[in-house]
Amino acid sequence: MTYCVGMIVDKGLVLMSDTRTNSGVDNISVFRKMFSWQVPGERMIAVMTAGNLATTQAVVSKLEERTKEPDERETTLLNGPTMFSVVSEIGKLLRSTIEERQTANGDRGKGRFTASMIVAGQIAGMEPRLFMIYPEGNFIEASWDTPFFQIGETKYGRPIIIRGYDRDMSFEDAVKLLMVSFDSTLKANLSVGLPLDLLVIEKDKFAPTHEHRVTAEDEYFNSISSGWGDALKSAFHSLPGYTFEPKE
Amino acid sequence: MTYCVGMIVDKGLVLMSDTRTNSGVDNISVFRKMFSWQVPGERMIAVMTAGNLATTQAVVSKLEERTKEPDERETTLLNGPTMFSVVSEIGKLLRSTIEERQTANGDRGKGRFTASMIVAGQIAGMEPRLFMIYPEGNFIEASWDTPFFQIGETKYGRPIIIRGYDRDMSFEDAVKLLMVSFDSTLKANLSVGLPLDLLVIEKDKFAPTHEHRVTAEDEYFNSISSGWGDALKSAFHSLPGYTFEPKE
Repeated sequence: MTYCVGMIVDKGLVLMSDTRTNSGVDNISVFRKMFSWQVPGERMIAVMTAGNLATTQAVVSKLEERTKEPDERETTLLNGPTMFSVVSEIGKLLRSTIEERQTANGDRGKGRFTASMIVAGQIAGMEPRLFMIYPEGNFIEASWDTPFFQIGETKYGRPIIIRGYDRDMSFEDAVKLLMVSFDSTLKANLSVGLPLDLLVIEKDKFAPTHEHRVTAEDEYFNSISSGWGDALKSAFHSLPGYTFEPKE
Repeated sequence: MTYCVGMIVDKGLVLMSDTRTNSGVDNISVFRKMFSWQVPGERMIAVMTAGNLATTQAVVSKLEERTKEPDERETTLLNGPTMFSVVSEIGKLLRSTIEERQTANGDRGKGRFTASMIVAGQIAGMEPRLFMIYPEGNFIEASWDTPFFQIGETKYGRPIIIRGYDRDMSFEDAVKLLMVSFDSTLKANLSVGLPLDLLVIEKDKFAPTHEHRVTAEDEYFNSISSGWGDALKSAFHSLPGYTFEPKE
């Protein structure tokens, strides 16, 4: 499993992903699921992946044109005129990569090799944009009505984002919110694991404003993880108490 | 979908279930998923169900021996010498009911008609017990290490139970905790819906200590639902803030 969240706020984009991959609980590894590309002053694009690791790695490699010699590469990501065109290309690549594997494996391949992605970024002259791409290659874009996307193990960490999100929140608060959401997910699903990758993309900067890898030794994450339990208990006790009239 | 939780605390058992059933979002109905039986002074047993409604209704009807004339009925629930024997019988009934439907429908029946159950209760001379029955008819029992079971849409409402549970909590706090857990689930999954059924079984009483149906007009539930958002936000703001050193 995986857990990735992309969130859009007034100030820009905040992304967080875990790094655990597993085939069975007895076979876990750490792989990066967040990738980013930039043309300083012109564009900053990030991709997060969930699903079959061979599929997502293949898509990222193809995006980077690793089939070509280094000096012949012209990554779509860096040439597409708009975020929409970039995401369309990634969607096509994702779909064809999945289909290729499925076809090669016939009936046994059905439903395997599937993957989904979150793409976030901004190209100069346009607004920051956030997209989610389905395995079928089609995609949806975030709006202020639905300003965040999750992929992978989305449920445990969702209620706190719904409750805590505010479009005018600071980047710091947005990061804190994601850390709480990830902490709830990590506590409930072993197949989501540390370290976490964090990326903050400020509007109109076209460069990472903040990048950080949250490890098991991360003091801030640990203070959130231990503090959240107590904070939740206080919140719980602050609510009115239930009473039941004694039954006759 | 469905959401039911059974929880064991020092004082006894607390159960809550929703009542929404659906086949598609365009076809929803209200059906009770919590059932209870008692022999005053001797036993009190409650069952909650998730899964195929025809299956769970059939199991409950068979448990009550509705195939027999009213005066010939000798419900297993009321005769089993221990909770273990009662739960074994329910498990067998559940398994055979599912199997019957699946066999009758051949290949098309595979994976349909499935259901699971939570059984809670106490028989005089023994402790209160809490069980979860799988579609295969086997079952597990709760312990102080894992003092609650959920069936149906379990994920959204799980983190708060993990964080808020305390075995020596009052019944009132346990009910409050379940209301918060149900509120988070209702907000995230349309296929879990009001009204909710609540049952509190105090140890050694062998009668319902408190029964309540939580409707959309329930003042207490509404105060929890609206208050929890604010309480969560306060909890969130009480945590230390994240800071990132400005990137050079």
